[in-house]
Amino acid sequence: MDRVLTNLKLVTMQPIANQSADENNGYHIIDNAVIGIINGKISYIGSSDHVDLHGHPDVIDCQQALVTPGIIDCHTHLIFAGNRANEFEQRLQGVPYETIAKAGGGILATVQATRAASEDELYELAIDRLEGLKRDGVTSIEIKSGYGLTLEDEIKMLRVAKSIGELEDIKVSTTLLAAHALPPEYQHNADGYIDHICTEIIPVVAAEKLADAVDVFCENIGFSNQQCERVYAAALAHGLKIKGHTEQLSNQGGSQLAASMGATSVDHIEYLDDAGVTALQKSGTVATLLPGAFYFLRETQYPPIDALRKAKVPMAIASDFNPGTSPIASMRMMMNLACTLFRLTPEESLRGVTCHAAQALGLGESRGQIRVGMDADLAIWQLEHPTELSYRIGVPDLLARVVDGEFFYAD
Amino acid sequence: MDRVLTNLKLVTMQPIANQSADENNGYHIIDNAVIGIINGKISYIGSSDHVDLHGHPDVIDCQQALVTPGIIDCHTHLIFAGNRANEFEQRLQGVPYETIAKAGGGILATVQATRAASEDELYELAIDRLEGLKRDGVTSIEIKSGYGLTLEDEIKMLRVAKSIGELEDIKVSTTLLAAHALPPEYQHNADGYIDHICTEIIPVVAAEKLADAVDVFCENIGFSNQQCERVYAAALAHGLKIKGHTEQLSNQGGSQLAASMGATSVDHIEYLDDAGVTALQKSGTVATLLPGAFYFLRETQYPPIDALRKAKVPMAIASDFNPGTSPIASMRMMMNLACTLFRLTPEESLRGVTCHAAQALGLGESRGQIRVGMDADLAIWQLEHPTELSYRIGVPDLLARVVDGEFFYAD
Ligand SMILES: [Zn+2]
Ligand SMILES: [Zn+2]
Repeated sequence: MDRVLTNLKLVTMQPIANQSADENNGYHIIDNAVIGIINGKISYIGSSDHVDLHGHPDVIDCQQALVTPGIIDCHTHLIFAGNRANEFEQRLQGVPYETIAKAGGGILATVQATRAASEDELYELAIDRLEGLKRDGVTSIEIKSGYGLTLEDEIKMLRVAKSIGELEDIKVSTTLLAAHALPPEYQHNADGYIDHICTEIIPVVAAEKLADAVDVFCENIGFSNQQCERVYAAALAHGLKIKGHTEQLSNQGGSQLAASMGATSVDHIEYLDDAGVTALQKSGTVATLLPGAFYFLRETQYPPIDALRKAKVPMAIASDFNPGTSPIASMRMMMNLACTLFRLTPEESLRGVTCHAAQALGLGESRGQIRVGMDADLAIWQLEHPTELSYRIGVPDLLARVVDGEFFYAD
Repeated sequence: MDRVLTNLKLVTMQPIANQSADENNGYHIIDNAVIGIINGKISYIGSSDHVDLHGHPDVIDCQQALVTPGIIDCHTHLIFAGNRANEFEQRLQGVPYETIAKAGGGILATVQATRAASEDELYELAIDRLEGLKRDGVTSIEIKSGYGLTLEDEIKMLRVAKSIGELEDIKVSTTLLAAHALPPEYQHNADGYIDHICTEIIPVVAAEKLADAVDVFCENIGFSNQQCERVYAAALAHGLKIKGHTEQLSNQGGSQLAASMGATSVDHIEYLDDAGVTALQKSGTVATLLPGAFYFLRETQYPPIDALRKAKVPMAIASDFNPGTSPIASMRMMMNLACTLFRLTPEESLRGVTCHAAQALGLGESRGQIRVGMDADLAIWQLEHPTELSYRIGVPDLLARVVDGEFFYAD
């Protein structure tokens, strides 16, 4: 073993087959544990009692700290310029949304600012936001494009996301979300824009290996099922994974469409119906909950948690960090919101930001659990029990993040 | 001037007499400003253009950073041992509250753990939580007792609070909250416990100068108006300020009682009625909103924001940090919750954690505004506009806190 971590309270989050639901089985906790790491992968997990480490050159005593898989934020719009604090204030001052939109507010304000920004500017802005997420133990993050809406500007956003992924302390999955909103250039010509995405943007993005997946906004104020289906087909033809913003504001059947085509996740899903749940169950698609947007928009339609739970559909939780509906760079807050608003248990909440989040990115085989053979991506906490991760917010209890076996200590 | 801060975007939060409600007047922003400091007090505020600083020995160039008054958290239960994550989990697993209470859960679990803890242990635990609040620019904090419920243990808590206040980077106001819950020793003898508070605890706490104020939990599951009135009378007789946990779960008229006796603040006030609002208006008592507890308990009864606004009752916002109903050490989250849930404007929200929070502590003359003669307590932000303070959460945008003119840089 290259490196050994000793004296851990290990929360492995390994899936449990038919175990009783008592607390420790659910979290799969191993007290007084040891992790061995070789070449950035977990090579050994066991009890401290059974390992002789005399003379090992690289032993890190974690002093009974709680160790979870590194936290994974599987849905963000981290890269954009500007902010929409002014709209936030105007709405609270009673200005109607239509007035704000007519004055150039809303998503197109962010598109305009993002188009005008350089890659360097976008990089610096995103890094600041990422610092907030890192404070909550994030080691992997998904980042979407979607504020460029031209070939050039979508590529610019994805390049910035890729360059963030070159940092040694964070892993980035990139997603092309050209089908986020209709750009002004294609007003009244949504099908023309979909053509452009399918025949020009996706091929270039795939050829330059800028995206791992392709996402769409399937909604009556976004794109139709038929349009989304075309985007998905083009993505799949170019070897890219697919996922969707579906059933957020109404039940369009977008989740079923995405599931039927093999999506790794469908996200938001407040309006998902029973047929949708069954479709996810069949396809093994992850249901990604975005409680930050639910909270920020003061939604009242709850995602069908009980039905998803009964159908054993894996539920992920993500920040959806974005300037319009979730300017909240905190996974601990998301975990608390998921418990408080959606009534997830703290264990479901931790699965949502570890093993299920990895699955939502199509990375369930290598990340999201503490398991031999998986990446040595960990979060180390000054906490006694994993329940505290969902319960308490704001106290700086992260000690370190570990990415591919390398330690990055918290401030 | 001992020290000069230049190139500030200054958000003074000075009260506005009959000004129009446009954005900048509301926040009272001064661009390109200078602050002079003498002996820890603000001695000068003006435009950078009008000051000749050639050769001044202590000039700090703030590079157009946004500067607000230091954030004040005017209601916390920061000191306690243990946590109640287990109850949080049990409730989400469907265990009824009665079962949890019968098993020794609830506030008495915290009382037991706090009684068993040493001053050193309580100090270390509180310091960790305080670090979270400092990340949001907090320079002043109120800390209550109330988990001891014996003379000895209440004094222990207040001593810990006082010793935190000896740190040079934080100011602490201490509040005796012996009337928080009925201790097991006085079961079925609430009046006997009130006697004990009035004739033994308050006199000792006052004599040893351990508390600035006395607080009560006035509620049908707490103490009656008559009992609270006796506590207030004893506090006032010993020269202490008074305040109350009132109208949180029902309308008891506790706010009116507190106001009529000159309370600096009444806190929670979800069930405050029109007569209560009028009473606060007459007495100049601050209405302290605690949106963290409202959120965490999923309350549906909203405090009467419109009525308070119309009556020009100053509204403060505090964390109410505590293990049972608000384990959230973040004033930025509180500001966002106040806007999102209670529909305060971001300007009201910032007033709530600056000038109005100072008033809630009876310190409105010396803190909570950037004003000549007041304490040089500031928060310096990497932000463009104060609205962003309420809008965005989790991004580490605090650059420094200033306490009595001394700089404490963020990580
Ligand atoms: Zn999204
Ligand atoms: Zn309280």
